[in-house]
Amino acid sequence: MSKNPLSANFRLGFLGGGQLARMSALQAFRYGIQVGVFSDRPENEPVQFMTPHSQTGSFESADDLSAFARSCDVLTLENEFIDSDVLSRAQEASGTPIYPSPQTFALIENKLIEKMTFEQAGIAVTPYALVEDEEDLKSFGTDHGWPCLLKSSKGGYDGFGNETVRDLEEARAAFDRLGGNEGRDIIAEAFVPFTHELAVQVARNETGHVVYPCCETVQENHICVALKTPAPVDPSIQKEARRIAAQAAEAIDGKGLFAFEFFLTREGNLLLNESAPRPHNSGHYTIEGCITSQFENHVRAVLGLPLGSAKLRRPAVAMINLLGDSKRDAQVDQALDALRVSDGHLHIYGKLDSRPGRKMAHYTLLGEKLESTYEKARKVTQEISI
Amino acid sequence: MSKNPLSANFRLGFLGGGQLARMSALQAFRYGIQVGVFSDRPENEPVQFMTPHSQTGSFESADDLSAFARSCDVLTLENEFIDSDVLSRAQEASGTPIYPSPQTFALIENKLIEKMTFEQAGIAVTPYALVEDEEDLKSFGTDHGWPCLLKSSKGGYDGFGNETVRDLEEARAAFDRLGGNEGRDIIAEAFVPFTHELAVQVARNETGHVVYPCCETVQENHICVALKTPAPVDPSIQKEARRIAAQAAEAIDGKGLFAFEFFLTREGNLLLNESAPRPHNSGHYTIEGCITSQFENHVRAVLGLPLGSAKLRRPAVAMINLLGDSKRDAQVDQALDALRVSDGHLHIYGKLDSRPGRKMAHYTLLGEKLESTYEKARKVTQEISI
Repeated sequence: MSKNPLSANFRLGFLGGGQLARMSALQAFRYGIQVGVFSDRPENEPVQFMTPHSQTGSFESADDLSAFARSCDVLTLENEFIDSDVLSRAQEASGTPIYPSPQTFALIENKLIEKMTFEQAGIAVTPYALVEDEEDLKSFGTDHGWPCLLKSSKGGYDGFGNETVRDLEEARAAFDRLGGNEGRDIIAEAFVPFTHELAVQVARNETGHVVYPCCETVQENHICVALKTPAPVDPSIQKEARRIAAQAAEAIDGKGLFAFEFFLTREGNLLLNESAPRPHNSGHYTIEGCITSQFENHVRAVLGLPLGSAKLRRPAVAMINLLGDSKRDAQVDQALDALRVSDGHLHIYGKLDSRPGRKMAHYTLLGEKLESTYEKARKVTQEISI
Repeated sequence: MSKNPLSANFRLGFLGGGQLARMSALQAFRYGIQVGVFSDRPENEPVQFMTPHSQTGSFESADDLSAFARSCDVLTLENEFIDSDVLSRAQEASGTPIYPSPQTFALIENKLIEKMTFEQAGIAVTPYALVEDEEDLKSFGTDHGWPCLLKSSKGGYDGFGNETVRDLEEARAAFDRLGGNEGRDIIAEAFVPFTHELAVQVARNETGHVVYPCCETVQENHICVALKTPAPVDPSIQKEARRIAAQAAEAIDGKGLFAFEFFLTREGNLLLNESAPRPHNSGHYTIEGCITSQFENHVRAVLGLPLGSAKLRRPAVAMINLLGDSKRDAQVDQALDALRVSDGHLHIYGKLDSRPGRKMAHYTLLGEKLESTYEKARKVTQEISI
């Protein structure tokens, strides 16, 4: 990119207009950069309220994406569900660079290729296999025991596209539901008994890379509900997770912000479980918790700017996801106590509709001790309803 | 206001679309709030790039303001140049509340009324007098000595509407230029020899008030070029400035964010010099420097939400204004060194055109010691051109 991104009328385009794009867009604005958004939803997406430059179309159409790309100087993505081939064609046709690159997406969009890529880089991943028929399901179960996980190799997110199966019969049914009989690649993953789920973000571009602290993600029903930073595990484990995360970002030649999720097994081993080529829920705590947030470093990374420090501002940071409780107009109630807490920070995503389990907002609390900070964050957010 | 401001489709309207509204709007977005902007400029204002909801019209027209107000749930202002009477009529006609209130504006929009209001509250202000003719100019010069300052009682900003005059002849000419012979109220202010110019922000609403640290504003040619926080003066002086600032916000029954500027005289006395009923350049350091920024507390205050802590994050904060160097398309060059500094934060306002002395961006650096932090901030921003 030859144009100085810090010049008038420079426009960063987001493919996808949800909360991740929104929080990145807020940082782009901080650099005086204009924001465009492309979505397959005609209106009411969080970023659509933040810019006069919205376009709609199909994520499957290289033509639609190209038309949008031509109105922007750089494009970035807030999810990994656009086919890398479509991205590649849109980039080619428009001449507008897309970061992370379509090549990086090609390595990460398919769980099978992703795992092979990381394994080739010497990174331990959750044991897995491509399962193409009942025979494969059976032999995976025999080798790794039940229960195990079946995952669609493309398009999974927050428990969608994933199923835990306890025996061959459940496996057969899930295989079918996930589209295995319609030609979709399904992979089986061993069920790994773990003590903690950990996550690390990495920002990386041609100027270098920055690795965030290692946090613990607290999950309920496959949805992240809270974060603890630094993760309450031995510092040597944190260090190792951060080392692997940097290695993984390099393995996919990442330019942008990447999140890596790990299982810490009972034996104390780290297995790379998931990766995301974008700012991630596990990095929301960085907005106030770190000197430079994941969103700011994402913007810096895709624009080719030097990256900022990822150091923690205070010794402990807790983040609570605030999920929708029912299908209704979005409205945050009982949040005043949380606003009153010093160094407690409320973020609301501007979605118009609430739904059970939908990510609507989050709350970050900085403190001195991890457990008491986490307990306080849970307590003051307990009554909040959205 | 009965509607919960944290509900879907709540819209905060800004009268004025410059950098102060822009930085406030970024905080409104953080609460999921939508943003509207009203400007007398048809396009290309910083906030106009951040929302699909822009309207243009005249700031002198209550009808124009009412039409905009009807599209919003609350209005706020980024400058003090709209007549309080017009605000009052727009509020009445639209039913949309304006904060700070037109009543507060009525006390602050006219420098004469402002000074009388603060004096009545027991606050020492710079010695002044309304001057209506040559006789008044002469007697003010005799009483307080030359040089002195002549100010238009309405509409002054960053040296505009202010003139330093060294004798009666200069005073006569300035009186004429400032509109004294066309019926404009002109006040004369004694030239106060001071050691420091200080500033304090106060956020205030029905839930309480919060007072920010006392900072020093470094001025060149009547334009603020830098800030040092905490101000390098005795802690008792800082404390007194903060006490007076809280008192001043109360004297005007302020709901919103207010900035108060003081002279610290050679004798060690504090004189209230200027006040602003809005986020202010002297509070830009609070974005990263304080737990809750002036912009966030401004949004909280006008929405009636509890206010956040104004404590400093680190012992020292320096802020450098980055001013335009010539008339040209805005472009920030030589900023990469500043981006590389840990806890250095660059903010660019998204203005399309640069002009000599125009406020285009700022840079904040947090550190441990004030002087070295300030020196470093100056050094890494020295080569930046906009």
